Amino acid sequence: MKRHEFEPNEDVLSGETADIYFANTVEILRRETLNPVATMEVFASRAGVFCGIDEVKALLTRILPEDSREVWALDEGDTIGRKEVVLRITAPYQSYGLYETAIDGILSHCSGWATAARQCVEAAQGIPIISFGARHVHPLVAGIMDYSAIVGGCAGCSSVSGAKLAGIEPSGTIPHALILVMGDTVKATVAFDKHMPPGMPRISLVDTFKDEAEESLRVAEAMGERLNSVRLDTPSERGGVTADLVKEVRTRLDQDGFKHVKIFVSGGIDPERIAYFIENRAPVDGFGVGSYISGAKPIDFTADLHEVEGKPIAKRGRTPGITDNPRLKRIL
Amino acid sequence: MKRHEFEPNEDVLSGETADIYFANTVEILRRETLNPVATMEVFASRAGVFCGIDEVKALLTRILPEDSREVWALDEGDTIGRKEVVLRITAPYQSYGLYETAIDGILSHCSGWATAARQCVEAAQGIPIISFGARHVHPLVAGIMDYSAIVGGCAGCSSVSGAKLAGIEPSGTIPHALILVMGDTVKATVAFDKHMPPGMPRISLVDTFKDEAEESLRVAEAMGERLNSVRLDTPSERGGVTADLVKEVRTRLDQDGFKHVKIFVSGGIDPERIAYFIENRAPVDGFGVGSYISGAKPIDFTADLHEVEGKPIAKRGRTPGITDNPRLKRIL
Amino acid sequence: MKRHEFEPNEDVLSGETADIYFANTVEILRRETLNPVATMEVFASRAGVFCGIDEVKALLTRILPEDSREVWALDEGDTIGRKEVVLRITAPYQSYGLYETAIDGILSHCSGWATAARQCVEAAQGIPIISFGARHVHPLVAGIMDYSAIVGGCAGCSSVSGAKLAGIEPSGTIPHALILVMGDTVKATVAFDKHMPPGMPRISLVDTFKDEAEESLRVAEAMGERLNSVRLDTPSERGGVTADLVKEVRTRLDQDGFKHVKIFVSGGIDPERIAYFIENRAPVDGFGVGSYISGAKPIDFTADLHEVEGKPIAKRGRTPGITDNPRLKRIL
Amino acid sequence: MKRHEFEPNEDVLSGETADIYFANTVEILRRETLNPVATMEVFASRAGVFCGIDEVKALLTRILPEDSREVWALDEGDTIGRKEVVLRITAPYQSYGLYETAIDGILSHCSGWATAARQCVEAAQGIPIISFGARHVHPLVAGIMDYSAIVGGCAGCSSVSGAKLAGIEPSGTIPHALILVMGDTVKATVAFDKHMPPGMPRISLVDTFKDEAEESLRVAEAMGERLNSVRLDTPSERGGVTADLVKEVRTRLDQDGFKHVKIFVSGGIDPERIAYFIENRAPVDGFGVGSYISGAKPIDFTADLHEVEGKPIAKRGRTPGITDNPRLKRIL
Amino acid sequence: MKRHEFEPNEDVLSGETADIYFANTVEILRRETLNPVATMEVFASRAGVFCGIDEVKALLTRILPEDSREVWALDEGDTIGRKEVVLRITAPYQSYGLYETAIDGILSHCSGWATAARQCVEAAQGIPIISFGARHVHPLVAGIMDYSAIVGGCAGCSSVSGAKLAGIEPSGTIPHALILVMGDTVKATVAFDKHMPPGMPRISLVDTFKDEAEESLRVAEAMGERLNSVRLDTPSERGGVTADLVKEVRTRLDQDGFKHVKIFVSGGIDPERIAYFIENRAPVDGFGVGSYISGAKPIDFTADLHEVEGKPIAKRGRTPGITDNPRLKRIL
Amino acid sequence: MKRHEFEPNEDVLSGETADIYFANTVEILRRETLNPVATMEVFASRAGVFCGIDEVKALLTRILPEDSREVWALDEGDTIGRKEVVLRITAPYQSYGLYETAIDGILSHCSGWATAARQCVEAAQGIPIISFGARHVHPLVAGIMDYSAIVGGCAGCSSVSGAKLAGIEPSGTIPHALILVMGDTVKATVAFDKHMPPGMPRISLVDTFKDEAEESLRVAEAMGERLNSVRLDTPSERGGVTADLVKEVRTRLDQDGFKHVKIFVSGGIDPERIAYFIENRAPVDGFGVGSYISGAKPIDFTADLHEVEGKPIAKRGRTPGITDNPRLKRIL
Repeated sequence: MKRHEFEPNEDVLSGETADIYFANTVEILRRETLNPVATMEVFASRAGVFCGIDEVKALLTRILPEDSREVWALDEGDTIGRKEVVLRITAPYQSYGLYETAIDGILSHCSGWATAARQCVEAAQGIPIISFGARHVHPLVAGIMDYSAIVGGCAGCSSVSGAKLAGIEPSGTIPHALILVMGDTVKATVAFDKHMPPGMPRISLVDTFKDEAEESLRVAEAMGERLNSVRLDTPSERGGVTADLVKEVRTRLDQDGFKHVKIFVSGGIDPERIAYFIENRAPVDGFGVGSYISGAKPIDFTADLHEVEGKPIAKRGRTPGITDNPRLKRIL
Repeated sequence: MKRHEFEPNEDVLSGETADIYFANTVEILRRETLNPVATMEVFASRAGVFCGIDEVKALLTRILPEDSREVWALDEGDTIGRKEVVLRITAPYQSYGLYETAIDGILSHCSGWATAARQCVEAAQGIPIISFGARHVHPLVAGIMDYSAIVGGCAGCSSVSGAKLAGIEPSGTIPHALILVMGDTVKATVAFDKHMPPGMPRISLVDTFKDEAEESLRVAEAMGERLNSVRLDTPSERGGVTADLVKEVRTRLDQDGFKHVKIFVSGGIDPERIAYFIENRAPVDGFGVGSYISGAKPIDFTADLHEVEGKPIAKRGRTPGITDNPRLKRIL
Repeated sequence: MKRHEFEPNEDVLSGETADIYFANTVEILRRETLNPVATMEVFASRAGVFCGIDEVKALLTRILPEDSREVWALDEGDTIGRKEVVLRITAPYQSYGLYETAIDGILSHCSGWATAARQCVEAAQGIPIISFGARHVHPLVAGIMDYSAIVGGCAGCSSVSGAKLAGIEPSGTIPHALILVMGDTVKATVAFDKHMPPGMPRISLVDTFKDEAEESLRVAEAMGERLNSVRLDTPSERGGVTADLVKEVRTRLDQDGFKHVKIFVSGGIDPERIAYFIENRAPVDGFGVGSYISGAKPIDFTADLHEVEGKPIAKRGRTPGITDNPRLKRIL
Repeated sequence: MKRHEFEPNEDVLSGETADIYFANTVEILRRETLNPVATMEVFASRAGVFCGIDEVKALLTRILPEDSREVWALDEGDTIGRKEVVLRITAPYQSYGLYETAIDGILSHCSGWATAARQCVEAAQGIPIISFGARHVHPLVAGIMDYSAIVGGCAGCSSVSGAKLAGIEPSGTIPHALILVMGDTVKATVAFDKHMPPGMPRISLVDTFKDEAEESLRVAEAMGERLNSVRLDTPSERGGVTADLVKEVRTRLDQDGFKHVKIFVSGGIDPERIAYFIENRAPVDGFGVGSYISGAKPIDFTADLHEVEGKPIAKRGRTPGITDNPRLKRIL
Repeated sequence: MKRHEFEPNEDVLSGETADIYFANTVEILRRETLNPVATMEVFASRAGVFCGIDEVKALLTRILPEDSREVWALDEGDTIGRKEVVLRITAPYQSYGLYETAIDGILSHCSGWATAARQCVEAAQGIPIISFGARHVHPLVAGIMDYSAIVGGCAGCSSVSGAKLAGIEPSGTIPHALILVMGDTVKATVAFDKHMPPGMPRISLVDTFKDEAEESLRVAEAMGERLNSVRLDTPSERGGVTADLVKEVRTRLDQDGFKHVKIFVSGGIDPERIAYFIENRAPVDGFGVGSYISGAKPIDFTADLHEVEGKPIAKRGRTPGITDNPRLKRIL
Repeated sequence: MKRHEFEPNEDVLSGETADIYFANTVEILRRETLNPVATMEVFASRAGVFCGIDEVKALLTRILPEDSREVWALDEGDTIGRKEVVLRITAPYQSYGLYETAIDGILSHCSGWATAARQCVEAAQGIPIISFGARHVHPLVAGIMDYSAIVGGCAGCSSVSGAKLAGIEPSGTIPHALILVMGDTVKATVAFDKHMPPGMPRISLVDTFKDEAEESLRVAEAMGERLNSVRLDTPSERGGVTADLVKEVRTRLDQDGFKHVKIFVSGGIDPERIAYFIENRAPVDGFGVGSYISGAKPIDFTADLHEVEGKPIAKRGRTPGITDNPRLKRIL
C-alpha cells in the first residue's frame, strides 16, 4: 500500500487555524528578543492507536530550522499508552510555538479515528471492516478520517479522498438512492453491472423495497455468478439487521445454489454489535462501519515544555526535564 | 456580529470527498439517461442545534440548476427535533446526487459541535462560555468547529479562523508555554501587558508554578487595575479546579482589594462540571470549554428520497411522499 | 354477556385431584368422630383480580350440607388486596376439608390469568385486547384460562371452549399454517373470504412471505372493502413489530386509499410492550396477547382455619377468630 | 416406576379446546379440497426439560392416519436446547391441523413444570424434593403438573392424581388444619399414628402453636422411635425457616437422643432458597416445593410448517425444509 | 430534667490524652516566647446534632485566662450544618493549644451519638426510643454516650452513669441471663415483680424459651394488671422481630383481655427498621436501640486558626479572618 | 514493646457504667439466694481482630472468686471469625453478672479499632501506618483507641496516653497551628528543629501556605540533611493528596538532591485510598490515618449463658451447652 505524501496546508502554515494566544506568545517573545531552544513533549490522555504523525512531520519539516532541530516520535499506527510521550521536539521556541494547536489537533483527531477503527477490527476477528462514515464528518476531513481508519486496520473506505491518501481503491456498493430512482433493486443492480468497470465487485443492497431474504434471492437469480455480495442495511424501524436474518439469508441463498454470494452487513455497527454477530455465529463476510469510527471522540493530546535552554522546567503537576521513552525514534 | 460568507471548497465540488458509490450512481444514471426531478429530505437522528446549513446553502447555490430547484430548510442555530425534516431539496437528481456525503457531513459535524456548545451555555445560566478546543480537532476544521460553537451560543473562541467565520475577535489568555519560557508568571503577565494592544483584556494564568491563591495575589499586586482576570486551570494531578478554590481565590482577592479582577475557569469543563460550580455557588466569571465541544460526537443526518418525478416513494421503514414540516422556509 | 354455568368436575369431587394429606386428615377425623363446625378463611398473597369464585361456588353448593353452611365471598372480577379475606366458609369440617386443594387451586390459577389480562387492558387505554395464548397451556385448562382473561377485561379470546365459558364468539384471524399450505398470503385471504361465514371479520396475516408493508398493500388491493384488518406478527428474527412499522403500514394503507383497514398487532405483547406502542403513538387497533396472560404466574391463595366450634383459633403468624371484611357478600 | 397410560381427552379430540383459527383453516382447506402431506416441526423458546410428549403421542396415535404418518421426537424427560427441534410430524395436514393448539399447549405447560422441578433438584444436590404445589393450579391440571414434576426429578408429589400418573405413592405429612381442629400438635400426631396404615411415614408439622424447637422435642418425646420426621413450615410472619433454625432443631433433637428423626423443610422454597440452605450447611433431609414448580411459567413451544408436499417452505424468519436433528427418534 | 455538672477530667487537663504535636507546639512557642492572642474556629464535616459543648465549656472555663478570653458557641442539642462554625475561641494561644485534641474529640464523639439518636427519634414519629447500646462501647464512655443519646432525643437509657449525667432514671427490663438462670420466663418475671421497687415498670422479655405470642400470654396471665409491657427481641436466627409478629401479639393480648400491656421492640433497630414498623402499622409502644446509636461514627470536627494578634490568617483551602455566624452566643 | 499493665477502672467496678438491668438481676438473684455456677460464652457478630481481652482479664482477676473460676480466651490481637466463641467464663453468676456490659463494651470498641487498623496495615503492604485519629474520639478513650490501633498493627500513634499503653514513643509532626502562629513553614520547621530533642524526627508539613512541591523544596533547602520527611495533607478544597502529587514531589526532591527526605501522606486516608496510592505506585513512606480507625464501628460482642450448674441451657436461636473451640487457652 503506497500512501500519499502529506503537504502542509497553507491555512495551517499561516497560523489562521491556531489559537490566538500562541500567536500572541510568539509576538511577545519576539519583542522581548527571547528565542530559547526549548523541548516540548506530547502525550495522549488515553491509550490508543497513534495516527497523524506523518502529517505532523511534513509540517515540522517545513517550519523548523534545519540546523537546529531534533524531533523524536513513534510511528504511524503504533499502539500508545496513556500519558506515554509520543513526540519530542527540540528547536528554537519561536519556530514552532505557533503550531502547538495544529500539532495537537492533527494527532488528536486522527488517533481518535484510528483507535475506533482498531476496536472494530479487533472485535471482527478477521472479518474485513470497511469505513463508511464519511457522511458524518465535515467534507474537509472526510479523507483524513478514512485514511486514519485504514491506519487503524480497516480493509477499505468509501471516500475517494480517503482512498487516495491511503493508496487504495475506494469501496462502495449501491446506495438506496439509485434503487429508489430506478424503482427496483434488481433493475438497479443490473444497471450497475452493465455500466461499471469489470474489476469492481457487484454488491447489491437488498432491503429497500422487499423483505431482505426475498430480495436477495431475486437479485441472485437475476445476476447469477456475476453477483459478488448482498448488503443488509435493514433500518431500525424494521428491527435492524439481526444475526438470525443473516443466517436465514445465508441458508436460503445456499439452498437455491448461490453459495458464492457473500453477505455484507451495515447499519449501526460498532464493536459491541460486531461481537454480537460473532457470538451468534452469523455468517457475515464484511462489516460497513459508519459513525462509530467517523464520530469517534478525538484523543486529547497535550504538549508541555520540559526544558528551556537545557534547563529542566515544568508546570505544577508535571515533572521537569526530558521524559525517558526508549520506543521513540528520531524522525528529523 | 457579521458572519463570514461561505464558499464551496474545490475538493468538495470535484467529488473528491464524496463516497464513491454516489459517484457511481450518478455515472450509471447518466449512462441510462435517467435524470428525474427528485425530492430528498434530510433529518437528524437526535435532537439538537441545527448548524451548517449556511455552508450547505452555498454549495447548493453553486450546483443546483437555477431554473429547476426548490430548497427548503430551517435556519442556522434553530433547535431541531429527532427525525424532524430540516432540509428538503427538489431538483434533477444528477445535479446533487454526488453531494449527499458532503451535505450530511457538514450538517452532522457542525450540528454536533453547536449542540454541545448549547448544552454548556444552558448549564452556565448566563456565565459566558469560550470555546477553547481547537487543539483537539484537525486544523482543517478548527475554524468551522469554533464557528459552530458560536452558533451554539458561545461568547467567544480561541482560533483565529473560527473567529473570522463568526465575525468576532478571537479570545485568549496566556498559555503555560509563555510562562515556562519566561520563568515566572508575574514576569510573563507584565510582558503581555507591555506588548499587546490596549484593547485586549489582561488575563493571567495562575497555576503554573505556585499555589493558585498565592499566585493570584502576586499577579494582582503587580498589575493592579490593569489586570482583567485570572484563569484557574489546575491540572488533574493537583485535583483540578474545585468550587472551594474559586471561592477562596475570590475571597482573598476581595480581602486584598482586588474586587475588579475576574475569575476564569478551564480544564475538563463540561455541562456536569459547570452545574457543579453553579450548585456550589462558586463565583466564576467565565468558563473555557475544550474537548466537550470540539470532541462532540457528530449528530448523524440521513438523507432519503421521498419523491421521484412527483411520485411518492420511500425505502422500507420510511414513509413515501413529502413530509410536512411548517417550520421549513424556502431558501433557494 | 351470558356466561356458562359451572359444573363440578367428577375428578375433583372424588378427591382424585386433592393433596393426599387432606384425604388423610378427613379419614383421621372420621375415625376420631370429630366433625366440628369450622370456619376457613382464604386470602391471596398479592393484590390482583379475583377470579374462579363462580366455579368454587358450584363446587361448594354440591359438597356442603345445605342446612349447616354459610359462605361469604367477593364477586368474580373484583379487585382484591394483598392478604384480604376473599372467601369465608363455615360448615362441618369433614364436608369440605378434602377440597382445600381444589378451592385454592381454582382461585390461584384463574386469578393469576385474570390479573395479567387486567394489566394488559389497563396498559392499552381502551385499545381492545384479545387473549391468544391457549397454545401455551395444557388443553384441559385452555378454556378456563381464556374465560379468566375475559373476566380480567379482554375483549375476546381464541379458544372455542374459553369463548363458550365466557358466552362470546371466539376470535381468530388466519394462522401462518394456512398461508404456508396455500403458498401465498393473498390466495389464503381470498379463500378465507370465500368459505367463511359473512359475519366473521376478514383479518389477514401479513408477515409470512413478504415485507409487511408490501404484503398489506397486496392484500388490501385484492380484498378491497371486504378486508377488515391486517395482523402484524413479525418474528423476533426480523426485529419483531415496531411502532415505526405500524406507523408506516398505516400511512401506506392510507396513501393507497385503504383507511378502513385496521391494524392488529401480536407477537411478544405484554403491558410494557403495549405501553411502548402507546407512548410512540403507533396507530394500533387491537393487540393479541399470548403467553403474558396464559403463562401468568398463579396468585397463591392460602386457606386458614380461624374458628373451631365457635372458638377463635389460628396457627402462629395468623390472628385467631373471624377477620372482618365488609366487602364480603353471602353467597351460600 | 410404571407410569400411567395417557388417553386423549374428548374435549381435545373434538376441537373444543383449540384456537378457532385452526378450525377455520381445516374447514377452508377441506372446502378447497387441499390436503397436502405437510411436515410440521416444533421447537422451544428456551432450554429446559422436555415433558408432555407421551401425552402428545397418545393424541397423535389417535388422529393421524396410520398408513400416512411419520412422527419423530425426543424422549419424555430429555434435556432440550433453545430452538432445538423436538418433534416432527409428517402427515396429511387436515388430519392434525386442528391440534396445533393442544400439542403446543401440552408440551409448553408440562415442560415448564418439569424444568422448574429440575432446577430445584439440581440445587438440592441429592436431597429429595417433593412437589407440594397442587393447591396453586386448577385441579384439572393438578395431576399432570405433579406428573411433570416427577419427570423433572422430584422424588414424590402430594396429589393423588399426579402420583397415579407417575406410578408412585402420594406423599404427605399433616396439614395445619388437622392440628388446628384437634387443638394440639402432639395429639394430632398421635392420632395420625393410630389411624394411618403402618407403611406411611409419620411426619409431624411443628410450627403451628409453639416454637419449632420446643414442639419438635415434645413430638419426639411422645412418638419416640415411631416418629420419622418433623416438618418446618414457619410462616413468613415469623421470619420463615432459616438455616440457623434447622441447625438448632437438629442439635436439640440430637442432644435429647432423637438422631433418627429427619427434618423436612417447606414454605417459599425455590432453587435460590435451597442453595441458601446448602451453602449454610443446614442439615435438611427433604424439601417441599410448592409454587416455584406449580406456578412455573410454561415454556413456549412453536410449531412451523417446513415442507408441503415434499417442497421446502417456511415463513420469514425460519429456514425452509427439514431441520436436521440426529437426537430425534421415530415414535410413530 | 436536671443534668449533671461536667468536671474536666484530670488526664485531659494534664495533656495525657492530647496528640503529642500539640504538646510540642506549645513547648516550642514557649521557648520562642510567642504567645499571641489567636482565634480558633471549629466546624463539623457533616450536618447533625451538636453535643459535647457543655463538657468543652467546663474545660475551657478551667484553662483559659479569665481576663483574656472570649468564647462563642451554639447550644447543646442544636442542629448544625456542614462546615458551620459552631465554636470560636479567642485567647492567648499557649493557654489552649494543647487541648485541640480534646475539644475536637469531645464534640466529634458526642455529636455522632446525638445525631444517630435524633435519626431514630425522627423515624419513630413520637414512639419513645430507649438507648440500649452501652454494651458496644468502652465503659469509660458508656455514660457520656447515653447522655448524648438523651441530648439527641431519646426518652431513656440503660446505663446508670448515662442516666446520672442526663438527670433521669435508668431504664431496663429483664435480661436473658435472669431467665436462663431461673429457667422460666414467668418465674423470672414474678421474681422481678417481687423484689424490685414498686415504681419500676414490670417489662418482661418473651422470646427466651417459647414462641413470643405464647410466652406473652403466659406472662400476662401470671402477672395480670401488674405487667407493664412485654419486650420482643427475637434473634435473627428466628427471623428477628417482624411487623406481623407485633400485630399478632397485640391482637392475641387484646383478645385475652390484656389491652393494658405494651409492646416494646428491640434487636437490630435502626431508622430504616423503625420506618418499616411504622409503614406496616405495627403497634409498637417503644423501641430499644443499641449499636445504631452507640456505634455511630463520630462526626469529624476540625479546628482552624483564623486570626493571630488580630490579623486574618488561614491555611490554603480556608478563608482568612473571622467567619460570620449570627447563631453563635457568647458563653465565656 | 512493653505494654502497660491494665487496672480496672473504679467506675466500672462500682457498676456505675453497667446497664441497670444487670444490677437488678444480681439483686433479684441475691434475694432469691440463687448463685449457681454458670458458664457464659462471648462471640463477635463479624470477623476481625480481637482486642481488649487484656483489660477484661484485669477486670475478671479482680471480680471472680479465685477458688471457683475458670476463664478461657483467645489472645490480644488474634484474628477471630464471625460467631466464634472468644471468651468463656465459668464462675458463680453473682460474681460477674453485673459486668456483662463492661466486658462486651471493652471487647466491642477495642476490636472495632484494631480491626480497622489491620485493614489499613494490610492495604499498605509494608508501608508504616500511624494512628492520627485521637481528635475524633472522646479523650477518655483516646488512649485505649490508639492502643487498639497498635494491637491492629499500626507502627505508631499520636496520643501520649495511647503510646504509654502500648509501650512506645508517640509520633507527631508539626500541626498547621504552629505554622499559622509563626507565619511561615520554613520558620516553624527551623524552630521545631532548634527546640525539640535530637532523637525526634524532623517532619515538616508542607501544604499550609504554598504549593506542596514548592514548599517541600524550600524546607529541604533550609533544613538540608536534618530534614527527615515532609508531610502532605492537602485539604479537599484543593483536591486532596493525589498519587501524581506524591510522584512529582518525590521527583523534584530527587532532582534537587534531597533523596533522603521521606514523604508522609495524611488526610482522608482509608484502605481504599491506600490501595489507590499503591496501585498508582506513588512513593509514599508512611500514612497517617485518622477517622477510619478512630471512628470505626465497634464490633458487637454478645454474651450468652450456655450452662447453669452444669446443665446445658440456651435461649432460642442458640445451642445449649459448651461450644467447642480448640483455639481457646485458659487465662484464669
